[in-house]
Amino acid sequence: MWSQIAEDLRAKITDGTLPTDARLPSEAELTTQYGVARATVRQALTALVNEGLIVPKAPRGYFVRHRQPLFYRPQTEFRPQPKTPEMDRFMADHSAEGREPRQSIDVSIVAPPPEVRQRLKLKEGELAVVRRRVRYLDGEPYNTNDSYFPLSLVQDTEIMRPVDIARGANEVLAEQGQEQVRALDEIYVRMPTPDEVRRLDLGPGTPIACHICTGLTADGSPVRVVVNVLPGDRHVIVFEREGMDPASNDKA
Amino acid sequence: MWSQIAEDLRAKITDGTLPTDARLPSEAELTTQYGVARATVRQALTALVNEGLIVPKAPRGYFVRHRQPLFYRPQTEFRPQPKTPEMDRFMADHSAEGREPRQSIDVSIVAPPPEVRQRLKLKEGELAVVRRRVRYLDGEPYNTNDSYFPLSLVQDTEIMRPVDIARGANEVLAEQGQEQVRALDEIYVRMPTPDEVRRLDLGPGTPIACHICTGLTADGSPVRVVVNVLPGDRHVIVFEREGMDPASNDKA
Repeated sequence: MWSQIAEDLRAKITDGTLPTDARLPSEAELTTQYGVARATVRQALTALVNEGLIVPKAPRGYFVRHRQPLFYRPQTEFRPQPKTPEMDRFMADHSAEGREPRQSIDVSIVAPPPEVRQRLKLKEGELAVVRRRVRYLDGEPYNTNDSYFPLSLVQDTEIMRPVDIARGANEVLAEQGQEQVRALDEIYVRMPTPDEVRRLDLGPGTPIACHICTGLTADGSPVRVVVNVLPGDRHVIVFEREGMDPASNDKA
Repeated sequence: MWSQIAEDLRAKITDGTLPTDARLPSEAELTTQYGVARATVRQALTALVNEGLIVPKAPRGYFVRHRQPLFYRPQTEFRPQPKTPEMDRFMADHSAEGREPRQSIDVSIVAPPPEVRQRLKLKEGELAVVRRRVRYLDGEPYNTNDSYFPLSLVQDTEIMRPVDIARGANEVLAEQGQEQVRALDEIYVRMPTPDEVRRLDLGPGTPIACHICTGLTADGSPVRVVVNVLPGDRHVIVFEREGMDPASNDKA
């Protein structure tokens, strides 16, 4: 039951119902609202303190910590800068400003997992190169980004080296005659695997978004599959759309 | 521990590692793989049977049920038809074909919740009209779609009536001089509130994606905010992108 209360408060913090610096209802108010023992309420609040979501400030109670989820823009590759003022403002409100970024990169040659092999259209046993990255802010893991490429396409390129590529791996692929002109993005929402929990140091019960991006050349050949794991307590996925067609499928 | 095993298998089913009709590893294999008691493995398998993800077929074991997650395309409003062959194929593979659709609609006048009021830029106490929909397939709730409009904009229109609007509420707004030309989409990944669990009949531990779409007119006024709740075990969010810029921000 404490877990349910914690989830309820967590949701309100993440979606802005309880905004930054807001004072949470008091222990007494929560005890009444949920109809539970005070110890249960305290357990929920302690969990949220441990997650870094709220801070106790005696004597007035608990307050929402200054932490917006980080924006995650799937459109970044095609659209480095936002086009609409709303997106511009959203990025400013949800940026990593003031937090020290860091990333780790390692490169392996692997027989890729099935969900990657199928999207890269490799045969069983065909090898891929994977550049695995963990992104940190203020020393805390935020998300992982694992980019897979067919080994045959990239084996004589910088993509094999475990260092950041200033101009980006997409440009390296283009130089090999493999320019990506479109992508398919899939987002799966689920609980993390034990491996993901470990890699991202996730608290118990933290759902994740798994964003799989398949980059394709003009003739429809997939040349890159990226798997991004985004903890739900740290991110908001955001994108902008233009050109609303009034006579559309989506009947509100 | 059984819950962890269930989650692991669930993830493999959802992302296609264990595709439709695939036979799961046997109880003995799973017992060895996870290093647990057979009863623990059985508990995990029973959970997945209860969720409708796998079916027992004696004597050979458990098989992945024929069920792909339903595709959910945030781009539908602006782009009723897919533009790329990959999206076309994805929609075909993840459609609701063969399943009987139904929806419920009810209309209320409300003081909207804070996360809606802020996005609609209403003052405290200003009223909104909400069209609440639950979508069903084969009698099972799939997702909810709640569309909020400022009451002042829509009070003399069909948007007030609890029936499907053939041409869509967006067209009704356009007829009022409030044509939406762009939108901002935010996706939050979290555990559901008790209210959402009830409304969507969710099994325990089912994470959700909360997709909030704000529709704006040319001068940047928000005229509609839609809150969609998508259980992670039933959906895959998918979109297509074109116009890859090789010299982009996203360094793979």
